[in-house]
Amino acid sequence: MAPSAIPQNGHRGEQDLDLTSSAVEHRMAENQPSDGNTVGAASNGVSQPNVQELDASKLTYNFTQSPRELPPLGVTAENGNSICTDHMVIAKWSAKNGWAAPELKPYGPLSLMPTASVLHYATECFEGLKAYRGYDGKLRIFRPDRNCERMLMSSVRISLPSFPPGELEKMIIALMSVDGPKWLPRDRPGTFIYLRPTMIGTQSQLGVQAPSEAMLYIIASLMPPMDSPAGGMKLHTSPDDMVRAWVGGFGYAKVGANYGPSLLATKEARARGFHQILWLYGKNGECTEAGASNFFVVWKTREGKTQIVTAPLDDRLILAGVTRNSVLALARERLSEEVEVVERKYTIDEVLEASAEGRLVESFASGTAYFVCPISLIHHRGSDIQIPAGKGGEGGSITLSLKKWLIDIKYGREEHPWGIVVPEEN
Amino acid sequence: MAPSAIPQNGHRGEQDLDLTSSAVEHRMAENQPSDGNTVGAASNGVSQPNVQELDASKLTYNFTQSPRELPPLGVTAENGNSICTDHMVIAKWSAKNGWAAPELKPYGPLSLMPTASVLHYATECFEGLKAYRGYDGKLRIFRPDRNCERMLMSSVRISLPSFPPGELEKMIIALMSVDGPKWLPRDRPGTFIYLRPTMIGTQSQLGVQAPSEAMLYIIASLMPPMDSPAGGMKLHTSPDDMVRAWVGGFGYAKVGANYGPSLLATKEARARGFHQILWLYGKNGECTEAGASNFFVVWKTREGKTQIVTAPLDDRLILAGVTRNSVLALARERLSEEVEVVERKYTIDEVLEASAEGRLVESFASGTAYFVCPISLIHHRGSDIQIPAGKGGEGGSITLSLKKWLIDIKYGREEHPWGIVVPEEN
Repeated sequence: MAPSAIPQNGHRGEQDLDLTSSAVEHRMAENQPSDGNTVGAASNGVSQPNVQELDASKLTYNFTQSPRELPPLGVTAENGNSICTDHMVIAKWSAKNGWAAPELKPYGPLSLMPTASVLHYATECFEGLKAYRGYDGKLRIFRPDRNCERMLMSSVRISLPSFPPGELEKMIIALMSVDGPKWLPRDRPGTFIYLRPTMIGTQSQLGVQAPSEAMLYIIASLMPPMDSPAGGMKLHTSPDDMVRAWVGGFGYAKVGANYGPSLLATKEARARGFHQILWLYGKNGECTEAGASNFFVVWKTREGKTQIVTAPLDDRLILAGVTRNSVLALARERLSEEVEVVERKYTIDEVLEASAEGRLVESFASGTAYFVCPISLIHHRGSDIQIPAGKGGEGGSITLSLKKWLIDIKYGREEHPWGIVVPEEN
Repeated sequence: MAPSAIPQNGHRGEQDLDLTSSAVEHRMAENQPSDGNTVGAASNGVSQPNVQELDASKLTYNFTQSPRELPPLGVTAENGNSICTDHMVIAKWSAKNGWAAPELKPYGPLSLMPTASVLHYATECFEGLKAYRGYDGKLRIFRPDRNCERMLMSSVRISLPSFPPGELEKMIIALMSVDGPKWLPRDRPGTFIYLRPTMIGTQSQLGVQAPSEAMLYIIASLMPPMDSPAGGMKLHTSPDDMVRAWVGGFGYAKVGANYGPSLLATKEARARGFHQILWLYGKNGECTEAGASNFFVVWKTREGKTQIVTAPLDDRLILAGVTRNSVLALARERLSEEVEVVERKYTIDEVLEASAEGRLVESFASGTAYFVCPISLIHHRGSDIQIPAGKGGEGGSITLSLKKWLIDIKYGREEHPWGIVVPEEN
């Protein structure tokens, strides 16, 4: 907790190196493979012997003795609490020893000291992905490699330990191999479960410092479908004095610090009859994210060209969504004759203009929780922008095409490398 | 978790009201006293019967059966973990019932579901204050009313429940009445203990929403003095691509989301031999905070006037430190003949210029943890700014005067309304 003593090799003329890149490089280097199964997990990036890497092959199994009854279809919560599956996977890390063997064990409460880092300094990050019971009977996870790579990036950004993303993926698949057959039964094709890998800083130390102990856990929760609010999703633009993320911040990382601070405006918007905030950025009101989802507009240019437009990733304001990436890839692959796909900065005024000139075609939000969700209205500074969203707000034709293609991949109607099949015992 | 249904009374032409102010007003209104002991804790700010307000007079006492041995002076941690006193105070809240009666109970682990809001969305805030064993034998807490008011503001900002700050203050004093006599014994005058009120969102729900259950707890921890690093504190300015807080964000609130994201740059700076980051803001490099402390510069103007300068609070980038406020008040009261006290935006270039022209007199950081800590060096973009910091870096004369006055108040050498005496039996 006290400031570190000044090391002899510190402060020696390397100061013009970029501090951030340098910090990230140090942290990522900790994850380089070395001989055997150890890596350098020391804070200085120097390899240390006996520091264990995360290793899914060491997973131990401790099955529940009191399995929960599978709730009827459509029941996803109990007394306002998420219903989770019977098991979870936990792996503990310490700076001294690295990663202990992960354990699959009964789902249940965690014991944390009141001084634990995560409870004070938001040393936490997570991922959200889903497992799907296909119409062909198979159990699939959608592009888990992407989530695992982003989890590593988020973890490093929030000063939690690094790990090989492929090992996390194996642990996720292991949990679904155990809980999938019961919780996504073969007689319920077209259903899904939500997977939440989470990492938290557990060191019991009130000093403001990178935690020397952490815990990675994976849980699986039931969740209602959120992609079809009646009449389409309605957005309220963020107020001038509330900014979600900023250049130089951490808006691109899936860390808790991006979520808690956004709840105040969201709750107020909901009290006024909207579903989510459309987060604007900068003096010009650039459109960034809708709630915690990526935001897309389909419009015609004044030259009559149809474009799908979404904010770019390069200034690291927004999350690089897996659904966002998939939507862009599918649109480029399958809609290129009719639609141009554009990642660029664009402002709420451009959306207003397109609306006023009758050029606004569709809009949707994309994300794991909201999937591909049609947007029918944006409220901005006293005016409503009405957006065509198809019959009953179910989505316009481009939104519906993208949605259908993704559903077909996720539920096994289309064989596609994005759908990773989970091995199940019979 | 699903978007709220659109209420009938929502979205009705009040949209130009500022969303943020309106949200904060709604939340603060929940804390208005009503008849009896109930307040409206509903999300819409409408008073509800049977929703209990936080009430320190209902505190129950459950004393430990296995008290910990008081460590020798100077020992503050064990295996890298903070040593806390024998007890903690906990109060649980739910949106439905409001605040349950608080409980003083043995210090120990908390049980949280893996889905708890705080572990995913950083729904957490805290305070830091200290209790001091005076040279006159009395036990004092320094300006706890300020911390309790700030805790309410932080809690509302992060969508945790509101409470009457005076009740929190009573609970803090109750904990110290019980643990103070043993942990700050009368034969150790001049010692202190660190108090950490904390609030966390405990609802077990993965939906991104304001938690409907929360827990407030107060713990007391030993902590080493941090105000006198050998040779003075050394700062490294923040890199261009890493910004601590921003206008429209939450830099002024003591929420976890301000801390975790700053650890990466801090760790890298420490590896290079510095103690903390000096956080700059904007294209002009305005000086904001040093680590998690307020930052002060003492310089002479070109006209020869001595000024104590620190960043202003009005754009809500920085924490309104209790020590900051106390330093400014004491300087205005006791140094006004020799020094002008200035709260204004100032840039790192102004500090560089003052240094180059021999006008830089002193610099220090202020905060509960760092108290008043002399700064001897700032490293910025490849150059070192050396700052006079007295013999051995113990602080220049203004730093030392401010420090002495505060010590005298805290340890009872000066009777002052800022030092709140804790009642003790005996």
